[in-house]
Amino acid sequence: MLHAKVLRLPTIKRLPTYLHILKRLEQEGHEFVSTTALINELDFKPILVRKDLVLMGIPGKPRMGYCLKDLIAAIESFLGWNKTDEAFLIGAGSLGQALMGHKPFEENGLKIIAGFDADPAKTGQTIHGKKIFPMDKLPELVRRMGVRVAIITVPWQEAQKIADLLVEAGIWGIWNFSMVKLKTPPEVVCHNENLSSGLAVFSVRLRKMHQ
Amino acid sequence: MLHAKVLRLPTIKRLPTYLHILKRLEQEGHEFVSTTALINELDFKPILVRKDLVLMGIPGKPRMGYCLKDLIAAIESFLGWNKTDEAFLIGAGSLGQALMGHKPFEENGLKIIAGFDADPAKTGQTIHGKKIFPMDKLPELVRRMGVRVAIITVPWQEAQKIADLLVEAGIWGIWNFSMVKLKTPPEVVCHNENLSSGLAVFSVRLRKMHQ
Repeated sequence: MLHAKVLRLPTIKRLPTYLHILKRLEQEGHEFVSTTALINELDFKPILVRKDLVLMGIPGKPRMGYCLKDLIAAIESFLGWNKTDEAFLIGAGSLGQALMGHKPFEENGLKIIAGFDADPAKTGQTIHGKKIFPMDKLPELVRRMGVRVAIITVPWQEAQKIADLLVEAGIWGIWNFSMVKLKTPPEVVCHNENLSSGLAVFSVRLRKMHQ
Repeated sequence: MLHAKVLRLPTIKRLPTYLHILKRLEQEGHEFVSTTALINELDFKPILVRKDLVLMGIPGKPRMGYCLKDLIAAIESFLGWNKTDEAFLIGAGSLGQALMGHKPFEENGLKIIAGFDADPAKTGQTIHGKKIFPMDKLPELVRRMGVRVAIITVPWQEAQKIADLLVEAGIWGIWNFSMVKLKTPPEVVCHNENLSSGLAVFSVRLRKMHQ
């Protein structure tokens, strides 16, 4: 069994891409994949792919490659995606709604089961099959449903208040899209996401190529 | 003037977060920011923030810190976000619609001016103020409007066909959310984004903390 500390952050970030391609190959009826075939489907440096695969601890078979089933199971187990966490999403704006409808999350261990919003026009609605509740129901529902994970997609001005509510109600993990650093106790995992990071890399690559 | 090659990828990815906070401080009426104050607002390691700021090439003033205006200008110029690229978005599903409505992109040098979708029920609609056109209008409109950047949010099965259309019509840069490696000529910048990479890091941190 692999431990999280064995793998570096860049490897962890590449795992979902491997998983997506391996599952596609499995659906197409393949049982094995060679490293070369996998590299051809990927935009990562071949040397990185080879190293990442070795770290998964699955022995490849000569002339066959990796058993897809085993490799998929190893990656899912490493990421904890063989179990599913139920999550609440707070802030059903355009980004929040997109995350609620983003199917890969549900396939990858994170099932958003309801949304919350301060806007009375939104509460009571069902978006991508998930109901939107008013904010004041949040602490009660976190406790009653035993939800441990939350996604914050509210404007940054509101985010700390929401985080405080969530932590008090018993949330363990916050995936924070609000662009502000949240103060949370050390036992709560707070992971900050900034969608503009990808745009930054894209922009720099564009300028380099077309100055 | 800084050149892209000077900065490493992790620094580039942190720049949008600095920019967001610096702009907020400027709006609040501040003129200067100390490194310590900035570090307090951030979730990055202090040593990384100090190094990143030095790389921006703006001298700090003793006891005052960095001039916000100068630091913002340096970061924006480095990212090329002082100019705005107009972009088309292809695939107006839930993710595509969220990106069309995501205000930080427009503030950060990427203005999505229209969407395209294969679904006749979507074409003709206006989403977040942007019109959705049918797919067969894409090559003509790329040429006529001189658009050079495109965002692909179609299912992976469709993505290569769309990329071929875009390249033929004269697109320079593709921001690809379709989870498939696109074959494009070397002069076209194709940047792949996988939203599940952030989820992977969050999941691993959650498992480490709460096993």
